[in-house]
Amino acid sequence: MTDHKKFEEITTSSEMIFKGKMISLQVDQVTLPNGGTASREIVKHPGAVAVIPLLGDRMIVVEQYRKPLEKSQVEIPAGKLDSGEEPLKAALRELEEETGYRTDNIRLVSSFYTSPGFANEIIHMYIAEDLVKGTANPDEDEFLDCEAITLEQAQQYMNDGRISDAKTIMAIYAWRLYLLTGQI
Amino acid sequence: MTDHKKFEEITTSSEMIFKGKMISLQVDQVTLPNGGTASREIVKHPGAVAVIPLLGDRMIVVEQYRKPLEKSQVEIPAGKLDSGEEPLKAALRELEEETGYRTDNIRLVSSFYTSPGFANEIIHMYIAEDLVKGTANPDEDEFLDCEAITLEQAQQYMNDGRISDAKTIMAIYAWRLYLLTGQI
Repeated sequence: MTDHKKFEEITTSSEMIFKGKMISLQVDQVTLPNGGTASREIVKHPGAVAVIPLLGDRMIVVEQYRKPLEKSQVEIPAGKLDSGEEPLKAALRELEEETGYRTDNIRLVSSFYTSPGFANEIIHMYIAEDLVKGTANPDEDEFLDCEAITLEQAQQYMNDGRISDAKTIMAIYAWRLYLLTGQI
Repeated sequence: MTDHKKFEEITTSSEMIFKGKMISLQVDQVTLPNGGTASREIVKHPGAVAVIPLLGDRMIVVEQYRKPLEKSQVEIPAGKLDSGEEPLKAALRELEEETGYRTDNIRLVSSFYTSPGFANEIIHMYIAEDLVKGTANPDEDEFLDCEAITLEQAQQYMNDGRISDAKTIMAIYAWRLYLLTGQI
């Protein structure tokens, strides 16, 4: 049996520092496996979805401003889970809101934690094919451009630093594997 | 020319909420492209390195407890940049501290932001080959096990949820691409 609690750190106290719109922050005091103590800074996040939308030999991406980086970035469509929302439903919602496309052909590629050292954010990443035109409808404080890029363009965007986030680089690797092997 | 400021959000005020050992948190008030306003919750992080250490047909991984997830996880070796530290030097340091291996054959695969919606954390991910035995020497509040796994095991660990963080899944995709094509 797999021991998911190996080297467990036991919480002795927990202080909530901040509760925001998107994230909250807590600091836990823990007892380490050797009996020592440490503090752990933990960002809590509601979880998110991302979609690799394939349209023929292209992938649909969106460009938006990322305040934490102080620059705009080209990324696959993604967004936070609404409270209680099922990830697949959220993926279809974000796909249509951000790109205007719908599909019935969507499946989970992977669910992954983005920064397990300090955050519990998980992203459920789907691949969507057989896209059909719906209606783009971004959130009111969301400003973005949508573009369908080839694999060559994707690699150029990575070289230029226009694509530089983990989920989108992972999506490009997954897309290459899918083209090479038929599976991810 | 590429416009890295498309849809720029102009900061009107910025409040530092918390300064910790690993991260700090600030909340910025911004003016949006349409003249509206919003607040942005931003986690600041010093940046990190990660290494894909290949040893024959195996990749070296480490298992450790991740307090934000309340479980242990198998990941590629990684760690924060020390203040002013050059990423390549940090990668070689973390590789030896966590796995006990050194190498002269190491190169950058990709630098990526883990969570551009709320954090500025960047990870510089390297691939290391031609490993030779040095001395493992984890930090004193770091408890970990080291293991060399095949690609098949890596995929099994993903299925079991023992591997479920972005950088390690990205590393496995990169490894598969490297085996298939000789490049990443």
